[in-house]
Amino acid sequence: MINARTMAMTTPHLTTIVPFFSSPPRTSICSPPSKNFLPRCSSPLTSRFMDFPFVSPPHKQLMVDLISSVETSLGSSLLPCSLPPDVQHFESPNGDAQGSLYVRSGDESSLVDFILGSWVHCKLPSGGELNITSLSAYLKPHTDAPNFLIELIRSSPTSLILILDLPPRKDLVLHPDYLKTFYEETELEKQRQLLEKLPEVQPYFSTALYIRAVLSPTAIMARIEAKADESARMEEIIHEHISPVAKDLLKIWLELCANGNRKVEKDECLQLAQRDKVFKNMTIEIDLGSSFPRLFGHDVATRILGELKIVYNA
Amino acid sequence: MINARTMAMTTPHLTTIVPFFSSPPRTSICSPPSKNFLPRCSSPLTSRFMDFPFVSPPHKQLMVDLISSVETSLGSSLLPCSLPPDVQHFESPNGDAQGSLYVRSGDESSLVDFILGSWVHCKLPSGGELNITSLSAYLKPHTDAPNFLIELIRSSPTSLILILDLPPRKDLVLHPDYLKTFYEETELEKQRQLLEKLPEVQPYFSTALYIRAVLSPTAIMARIEAKADESARMEEIIHEHISPVAKDLLKIWLELCANGNRKVEKDECLQLAQRDKVFKNMTIEIDLGSSFPRLFGHDVATRILGELKIVYNA
Repeated sequence: MINARTMAMTTPHLTTIVPFFSSPPRTSICSPPSKNFLPRCSSPLTSRFMDFPFVSPPHKQLMVDLISSVETSLGSSLLPCSLPPDVQHFESPNGDAQGSLYVRSGDESSLVDFILGSWVHCKLPSGGELNITSLSAYLKPHTDAPNFLIELIRSSPTSLILILDLPPRKDLVLHPDYLKTFYEETELEKQRQLLEKLPEVQPYFSTALYIRAVLSPTAIMARIEAKADESARMEEIIHEHISPVAKDLLKIWLELCANGNRKVEKDECLQLAQRDKVFKNMTIEIDLGSSFPRLFGHDVATRILGELKIVYNA
Repeated sequence: MINARTMAMTTPHLTTIVPFFSSPPRTSICSPPSKNFLPRCSSPLTSRFMDFPFVSPPHKQLMVDLISSVETSLGSSLLPCSLPPDVQHFESPNGDAQGSLYVRSGDESSLVDFILGSWVHCKLPSGGELNITSLSAYLKPHTDAPNFLIELIRSSPTSLILILDLPPRKDLVLHPDYLKTFYEETELEKQRQLLEKLPEVQPYFSTALYIRAVLSPTAIMARIEAKADESARMEEIIHEHISPVAKDLLKIWLELCANGNRKVEKDECLQLAQRDKVFKNMTIEIDLGSSFPRLFGHDVATRILGELKIVYNA
């Protein structure tokens, strides 16, 4: 099995020049989706992002499978990635940290606002490596259906933090019917319990209270620790346990949310847009605003965060 | 140490006739609190509720201390308990289950809607006993500050489920400033971590997703298991660890919420009233609606739930 350290030596060079695709013109937030938008070809950088060069084969396979499922299901309703090349791939001035972003917006016919894939790799002062891979999918305020989120954070070959959820887009206390539709009837709790049963799995509490607050009651927030000499067991957990649960959640999200028929009226659309905006702003601030300058230095972080704010419309 | 079984033999008889105090007339939901309401004397049943006859001395002491703190702090702004005697104390037709409710509403000058104490005791088919004690405190929609909740569920002398929180009254995703004020700046997370560190403590996941959804990101949801022969250790955990944390949370709630100065305008008051109403309805339905008929039979349950719906204004 190729471990993260070995794979680091095969990292592709990140400065290839690729065509720049600009985003389609945005219409008013709550205009209804239209079927008239023609998507363009995919960027050749897609495959570069999909290399996931620093993570183990099962970890990479999981991420590639998830992104492929989204792209297959949503098909041509997803526009190609339009990020500048130096935002699709970037590194710190001293080369210790590298990252890649991949964003595809939904066209005007789609309920999908955008999908955002990312990976970050950096050397730790301890001599180890930190590898984070994530896939988020955000819906437009024309629908109130939940978003999708998976994030895997590995600080060693035997240590993994997993965040996997369909974050709700409404206040569940005020909307128990929403809780019933998206979390009870979908039996998401069973998926959470499948992972909870493994002896290596402990609940994980994010230090950011806001991140805890945005997640659903069935969110999987797990700290998974294999024994020090059992990195193969961690790969087995990813392949045998995390992967099927993540794929099931994504399947539910694709069928019920991204390709669902739950549309809202204009008043509610405006409320959702407001909530989404706060959520996106806070996510950038908490999740990236502090860590990116530290990992990549001020200039690179400013470039990346600036571009993400455009994507997030934040 | 007196255990629950021994104490069960000393249960007071529950049919004493006591004066019936009716609730004060309710004004419009969002009328401002007034200072003109004169509270009446306390019911003689207060001390009966406070007997907590089936739980261990440290468990009883914790509940009595918490309720006394609330009553001392809120003083004469709390009206006497006005529940009918057969709702203040009740039992199942076969006597296997007993319960007690204690409700004091805030007067018109108070931000407190009401406090609700309860205990339930029943014999389990396994031969053991189930004992639940709780204290909830609800604020009026004139303020958006959080409520207070503690519940201890014991299914054996060595097993305890603890729910302890200041449940938020606004959508935290939309209101990060609210999260900051009530959960970050109060450092509630430190309290949660104090208990999490104990080797006997594991996170608890309520089977009711709605209950998970109403709690804050710093909620203490703990399953505490002492070894089979170590019921003394459980009492030590209640006395040494749970009690100080619960008292600290209640102190924060009393100072910052019940006696705070955070009042809202009429529009927001109406929104809060709506959210509170859904929350209270769902709480009755989930928490009591299914278990009370099973424990106490249809007639008793109908009487108790009917009275609670009046208290909850649900």
